[in-house]
Amino acid sequence: MKIQSPSVIKVGIVGISGFAGKVLLDILLRHKGVRVTYVAANSTTGPVDVIWPEFRNRTDLVCEKYNADAAIEQCDIVFLALPHTESMNVVGKLLSAGKKVIDLSADYRLKKLPVYKKWYHADHKDPKNLAKAVYGLCEVYRNKIRKASLIANPGCYPTAALLGLLPIVSIHSKKIVSVVIDAKSGVTGAGRKVAEAFMFPFVHDNFKAYRVLQHQHTPEIAQYAGYFAEKNIPVTFVAHLLPLNVGIQETIYITLNSRVKAERIVEMYKKFYKTEMFVRVLDLGQQPEIKNVANTNFCEIGLAVSEDGKMLVVTSVIDNLVKGASGQAVQNMNIMFGFNETEGLL
Amino acid sequence: MKIQSPSVIKVGIVGISGFAGKVLLDILLRHKGVRVTYVAANSTTGPVDVIWPEFRNRTDLVCEKYNADAAIEQCDIVFLALPHTESMNVVGKLLSAGKKVIDLSADYRLKKLPVYKKWYHADHKDPKNLAKAVYGLCEVYRNKIRKASLIANPGCYPTAALLGLLPIVSIHSKKIVSVVIDAKSGVTGAGRKVAEAFMFPFVHDNFKAYRVLQHQHTPEIAQYAGYFAEKNIPVTFVAHLLPLNVGIQETIYITLNSRVKAERIVEMYKKFYKTEMFVRVLDLGQQPEIKNVANTNFCEIGLAVSEDGKMLVVTSVIDNLVKGASGQAVQNMNIMFGFNETEGLL
Amino acid sequence: MKIQSPSVIKVGIVGISGFAGKVLLDILLRHKGVRVTYVAANSTTGPVDVIWPEFRNRTDLVCEKYNADAAIEQCDIVFLALPHTESMNVVGKLLSAGKKVIDLSADYRLKKLPVYKKWYHADHKDPKNLAKAVYGLCEVYRNKIRKASLIANPGCYPTAALLGLLPIVSIHSKKIVSVVIDAKSGVTGAGRKVAEAFMFPFVHDNFKAYRVLQHQHTPEIAQYAGYFAEKNIPVTFVAHLLPLNVGIQETIYITLNSRVKAERIVEMYKKFYKTEMFVRVLDLGQQPEIKNVANTNFCEIGLAVSEDGKMLVVTSVIDNLVKGASGQAVQNMNIMFGFNETEGLL
Amino acid sequence: MKIQSPSVIKVGIVGISGFAGKVLLDILLRHKGVRVTYVAANSTTGPVDVIWPEFRNRTDLVCEKYNADAAIEQCDIVFLALPHTESMNVVGKLLSAGKKVIDLSADYRLKKLPVYKKWYHADHKDPKNLAKAVYGLCEVYRNKIRKASLIANPGCYPTAALLGLLPIVSIHSKKIVSVVIDAKSGVTGAGRKVAEAFMFPFVHDNFKAYRVLQHQHTPEIAQYAGYFAEKNIPVTFVAHLLPLNVGIQETIYITLNSRVKAERIVEMYKKFYKTEMFVRVLDLGQQPEIKNVANTNFCEIGLAVSEDGKMLVVTSVIDNLVKGASGQAVQNMNIMFGFNETEGLL
Repeated sequence: MKIQSPSVIKVGIVGISGFAGKVLLDILLRHKGVRVTYVAANSTTGPVDVIWPEFRNRTDLVCEKYNADAAIEQCDIVFLALPHTESMNVVGKLLSAGKKVIDLSADYRLKKLPVYKKWYHADHKDPKNLAKAVYGLCEVYRNKIRKASLIANPGCYPTAALLGLLPIVSIHSKKIVSVVIDAKSGVTGAGRKVAEAFMFPFVHDNFKAYRVLQHQHTPEIAQYAGYFAEKNIPVTFVAHLLPLNVGIQETIYITLNSRVKAERIVEMYKKFYKTEMFVRVLDLGQQPEIKNVANTNFCEIGLAVSEDGKMLVVTSVIDNLVKGASGQAVQNMNIMFGFNETEGLL
Repeated sequence: MKIQSPSVIKVGIVGISGFAGKVLLDILLRHKGVRVTYVAANSTTGPVDVIWPEFRNRTDLVCEKYNADAAIEQCDIVFLALPHTESMNVVGKLLSAGKKVIDLSADYRLKKLPVYKKWYHADHKDPKNLAKAVYGLCEVYRNKIRKASLIANPGCYPTAALLGLLPIVSIHSKKIVSVVIDAKSGVTGAGRKVAEAFMFPFVHDNFKAYRVLQHQHTPEIAQYAGYFAEKNIPVTFVAHLLPLNVGIQETIYITLNSRVKAERIVEMYKKFYKTEMFVRVLDLGQQPEIKNVANTNFCEIGLAVSEDGKMLVVTSVIDNLVKGASGQAVQNMNIMFGFNETEGLL
Repeated sequence: MKIQSPSVIKVGIVGISGFAGKVLLDILLRHKGVRVTYVAANSTTGPVDVIWPEFRNRTDLVCEKYNADAAIEQCDIVFLALPHTESMNVVGKLLSAGKKVIDLSADYRLKKLPVYKKWYHADHKDPKNLAKAVYGLCEVYRNKIRKASLIANPGCYPTAALLGLLPIVSIHSKKIVSVVIDAKSGVTGAGRKVAEAFMFPFVHDNFKAYRVLQHQHTPEIAQYAGYFAEKNIPVTFVAHLLPLNVGIQETIYITLNSRVKAERIVEMYKKFYKTEMFVRVLDLGQQPEIKNVANTNFCEIGLAVSEDGKMLVVTSVIDNLVKGASGQAVQNMNIMFGFNETEGLL
Repeated sequence: MKIQSPSVIKVGIVGISGFAGKVLLDILLRHKGVRVTYVAANSTTGPVDVIWPEFRNRTDLVCEKYNADAAIEQCDIVFLALPHTESMNVVGKLLSAGKKVIDLSADYRLKKLPVYKKWYHADHKDPKNLAKAVYGLCEVYRNKIRKASLIANPGCYPTAALLGLLPIVSIHSKKIVSVVIDAKSGVTGAGRKVAEAFMFPFVHDNFKAYRVLQHQHTPEIAQYAGYFAEKNIPVTFVAHLLPLNVGIQETIYITLNSRVKAERIVEMYKKFYKTEMFVRVLDLGQQPEIKNVANTNFCEIGLAVSEDGKMLVVTSVIDNLVKGASGQAVQNMNIMFGFNETEGLL
């Protein structure tokens, strides 16, 4: 059993029974500056290495039923990897007790209450903290994250989309006519759901679109793309299910109202992300592949421009559970606590 | 060993060593109206059940090096499953001898010589027969196919795309502003190529775009969509590699200049394909899945419309080797020879 | 919609909602001598092409809740693809009404009541018909099958094992000391079970043994191997779960008490199965592969002998849903009704 | 780019273009006590992140053509991840220069020259160092490894087999009659070979045995099992190819000449491995799964005993590239240099 130093930040994970919770623990056990002191879930309890046998010999943590007082007593920071609409019941008390919270659900991402209600079919119960929450897209909001108490960790599809859109949208917002995002995700994106649609024989050797034009990540992408652009960006978004466990690939079609040159765009993207450790912009002609980022916190971006110069195709890949969830959450924690931003993530 | 009736149409397959050749033979061995009398390839020779062990106990055919005279003597119709730029060297002699030819390569699909040259990097060597070739998209050109001697069997991506586009493009061509096709294919689409990019560890658990904005199927789609529309249709096309063996899914984003209603579009598509055995239009809210058409000659189509009514999303799936190649080739043969159109294909 | 001839054998499928039921229907729709007139299940009801979208445009059959009278009225023969311990409640009435029955469950395979009870945890409720049931391993019991009213269709693992064992066990039973069977199956072998163990992320990229030394197919293999040998054959059996949908591979280690020569064994196996269409014995040095028999009714067998001549390794592959279930069931029907034995199966 | 401390052990990797080389670098970049100073291969050269794009932003190492003098000058220890029969040409010079060497090939594993020649079809060219090489199965030879200059890192199949056999073979050698090992490996076990047999369409949805009774790992297993037992152990070994990238599962059938009890065996195994961090012995009724050890240095072992007590079935899983190759190599280095044995491996 690995001995963890006691003089470090105490971390809690709520929602260990899900995939994001598992990956969080995996990363945090390798992190030199923290100690996981509290592990909980909504319904599952018991030794973590029974819930996830991958952790045999790696931890003797025991998952408890979530209890706010226990979490407050035992943690400096709490990661919430709960289903949407559950986090907002939990966040307030933790913040009031002076704890830092990184919420991996969608509850604190959409700034407008009616939009939240429309897409998540629930009234928001914590608008006060919603207003204070900082969107944890590290490459954009690093300075705010440093000072934040509550992080709304970005969704998996939005992370890949927004990192792919960010340079063009913030630098050439006036050129953008419309954006079409064709997104494909591995099965863990659906969570640890026991349903026929996710049974092996119904996913293996299969591929399909789902929730076409109705995916709840659409307004998240549109909202932040709009912030970057300082104007409304029309976003069409379709999600698809890939027959693999982890990874997202998105092909983003950006219609422009004036010509651009491929070389210039690549140059611009490379410059934009020059100091970003976890974003790799590829050379012209190269395409990002899921296998190159699986099990890592990297986002990889490829670029192509049509012959007439008016269609920019950005391709973006991430690991949905790492950069798209738990890895980015730890990156946020690293920023908040002044750790090296890559600690635990390389 | 299955005894084949001698009083039937005699069929030759050239290019048995490729995946399309294998599927062709599989279908034709089950076809009640034909007998496979000649099997050839460019370099591979020997018993077919050594080339493809799947055929042990099913056939004792022996693959020869292709010889035009042998093909002419032994066949009424010849399927050419050769690489692009090879078919055009072979077709002329077969046609002159009065044989029917179904060409699965791209050689007779693009009607304009410079377009062919641009995308296939070769001068066309048989423009005379190119002019006569009938594009074998059965659902569109059935009457011409009936009388044709030379069929240009459609490409796999174009088949899924054109069947998805056909109703809207031919009925509402004036509404169409632009078309974006995000296409995903299983690995057999690349042929039986021994290259690192197609090795198991480089495809499994992976997904990526390839030949972005430069795929040779783009002009084929644009040309025929243009014919259906009787106007130029701007097509953006990106291909992706799926970690599975067979199947294509395409998500087609059609930007419209005036509003449409989802229910009307579904109705229109259903009516359009009412008498088509191999095209299934799904109800609103349903999405086609590769597994539902794998190993079949079916194309399945789903439809969705954006809230503002100006974005139509068509999803289309086929088996790339069946409806996207050999199955459609047999369907063409069935039309040419007056067989039941589904013979061998259900 | 395919028109089925009315002058043919009328067939019922009970248990259409499972994988075996689906494959049965797929085969029977292609069979020239039968018409599927009745489709039922225990709980699922409704159009078959809603239960299995693969059948859209192929059938308008509607699944009913199972009713013996309806089955008797509408069928000449009934296939039961029900869970174990359910068939034995259904068979008696069908037989009494003069119907033929092919039971794909384990209910009529084990001849000794205590053995059935031990492995299936239930008392047998139909011992009278159990005594009359013929084990539907076509290659062994063809003559009995021809005259049978009730077929106990073999289990998937036993089919691959027994075909691999049959020649050596029946010809050289005295040489056999013991048999170890290491069996691997695709996920459909577990049925259409919605359980976490069969969710995509828990099967993909995974492999494990299960029910080690406790699999209920062990006594079935031991019983029939014993019949072939006319002596007790000690069988050790371990099952494993493969990350694929269909296919079984078994590696069978036969310890012998005297030396054999590999060439002789291959010769013996080839001679033994000379007239069997669906069993392929490979040459020395070749190994059977699941892909060569997937979606077919073939069994493929490879052979190897240790340097000291006292260990014979037989490898055997089948498609678990075809030769291991529905294909063999149709082969049995073909024998019973005097159809060509390969009808619907090539 | 991660800055590596200069005051650490300098490490070279020869054979970076193979899978084992890649995983070695991945582990060593996370290791706190070493710096990778030299990377070479036999034919491939150039930036490591071109050879393996996974390393973009993680390293700027450049792969050179292997040169002994450069390796000697730049390294304290050299990992050789070269093909079999190549390492033995390289080891001598490195050892003479006082360098430590961990050889991942088979060249220094088989102690008897004729056995090496028989299975690797080459004369051994370095018998002097062969005699001195220590077999790097850490759990057995830790004390020798500490003092060794040359480690013969165990093969992947032998690691899983020997860890599964070790307790029973060393404690109850007299009870053992024979051992049958049914081994299954992911595709990376075959190396980065570009051959049709390893193309995606020939591996996906497939499973087969290969080199049946002729696999070169057989004598390695037999030799060391014999050392543990201090008697000859007859080993039958068959390897199979799994449709996944990493992982080995072996089911080991041990025939005994007297009865054992399952509970006792589990107790014995647990006690035996009590202090071993990387070996997990499961409770009775549990089975190891590849997914639980993939991408880790763990070996997981399950146990079952037949009703008659005379057949012990041991199941063992590892990641073939980690515990079966590069992870174990680093574990050996950790022992040799006095690092924490888990450094870089958790």
